[in-house]
Amino acid sequence: MSLNIALWQGPSPEGSDDRAFATLDAALTAAAAMGAVTLVAPEIYFPGYNQPDIPAKAQARGGPWHQRLAALARAHGCGIVIGYAERDGATIYNSAVAFDGKGQEISHYRKVQLFGPREKSIYAPGDAVSTFDLHGIRTAMLICYDVEFAPLVRKLAEAGAALVLVPTANPEPNTHVSRLVVPAHAINHSLTIAYANFCGTEGDITYCGASVVAAPDATILAAAGPGPTLLVTDIARSPDPALMQTQLQDHRPI
Amino acid sequence: MSLNIALWQGPSPEGSDDRAFATLDAALTAAAAMGAVTLVAPEIYFPGYNQPDIPAKAQARGGPWHQRLAALARAHGCGIVIGYAERDGATIYNSAVAFDGKGQEISHYRKVQLFGPREKSIYAPGDAVSTFDLHGIRTAMLICYDVEFAPLVRKLAEAGAALVLVPTANPEPNTHVSRLVVPAHAINHSLTIAYANFCGTEGDITYCGASVVAAPDATILAAAGPGPTLLVTDIARSPDPALMQTQLQDHRPI
Repeated sequence: MSLNIALWQGPSPEGSDDRAFATLDAALTAAAAMGAVTLVAPEIYFPGYNQPDIPAKAQARGGPWHQRLAALARAHGCGIVIGYAERDGATIYNSAVAFDGKGQEISHYRKVQLFGPREKSIYAPGDAVSTFDLHGIRTAMLICYDVEFAPLVRKLAEAGAALVLVPTANPEPNTHVSRLVVPAHAINHSLTIAYANFCGTEGDITYCGASVVAAPDATILAAAGPGPTLLVTDIARSPDPALMQTQLQDHRPI
Repeated sequence: MSLNIALWQGPSPEGSDDRAFATLDAALTAAAAMGAVTLVAPEIYFPGYNQPDIPAKAQARGGPWHQRLAALARAHGCGIVIGYAERDGATIYNSAVAFDGKGQEISHYRKVQLFGPREKSIYAPGDAVSTFDLHGIRTAMLICYDVEFAPLVRKLAEAGAALVLVPTANPEPNTHVSRLVVPAHAINHSLTIAYANFCGTEGDITYCGASVVAAPDATILAAAGPGPTLLVTDIARSPDPALMQTQLQDHRPI
């Protein structure tokens, strides 16, 4: 048995929908050829994490971005998990959406842990997590900074999640998140974490790349360096039980 | 400017040409979609590194395996670098061949450093290295154990190689080759090394995976873990000059 997922790491589309969708079309072609069930793309891929005037560009859930994403997923028979700037009335969220390979929305998530003054000035925080079925695996989404907070990961583990998909926009020099935090949180909670970042420079931010897939025994299943990279890897391999642990049973609050 | 290459890591086709070519067809579809100029596949992919009766199964350079590989590369417009058991009269070599995206053979190499008693009982060693042009980059092939010998890597650097593509069949527990030796030899000789391994079990061998692309400053551009993984990464990124070195000028034999 195998279950392949794909992670796309590349530069921000910088507000160009044409560039954004052409890039996703190529990545979904590759992901589908390798039998991946979903492609994970970065945070606020639409319109681009560090673009100006995010509130003016944000779109509603189910809006034009989502309609094109759904059509693209359906055309390739491969799901997609991706970040976008969501408008809900007067409120803007840092959100992610999951479409399956038939183009159906199967999950939606709003980032809880906003990072720094810029994000806090643009976005309202989310207040809920949820899980969904991905080809038989209980799955959840987090966004970037979220995954650095163990209580959030723990909440997903308590909800039965075995896989966490994380669009991110992580700037230099923070490769410690990929090298240390993601694998540590994967093994501490016995789940697989896939963390898909941008690379390159967008405005005053240079992203650190280092997208990674960490297994429940902290084995690194696939990892990118600082440049444009596509990863497709099998997450169904059984981790070493001796190297797995869970803090769910053993946690003693003091 | 960018130059993408792809590495395929998966199980041995175990003597099945149908399985072998179906797998390569999928991987070349993905590689081509991502704009890769070539796909690197493991050592003795034909008929499978640890298959019995290799001499009876070996084929001539330009034989049926090569004709199908050339057609496949041409169909996808993406090159391929791959290992095979070569028959030349009564002699068997552990060889690799490079086809370009037009299906033309652009290089051929016979492994110099045979590993262990089994290889030495089957294969004759090669006695030459060569370089070829890959989209403007002076490139060479080595096979598996070859890349662990600094004088061989040095010979390629002296010939002007900036990129070394390495089909391999590296068994557990030898992940030190990917983690340490390949990046060390890359930075010591200021070249990029791409090392593509099998994973899974074939007969009495379990391969360790850990395919890797190391840049001339020893940066890991992409890396696989122990399971099936496709890597596509851009090798044209400029490495940090402060982290590059070359032993070509400084070597003082004693």
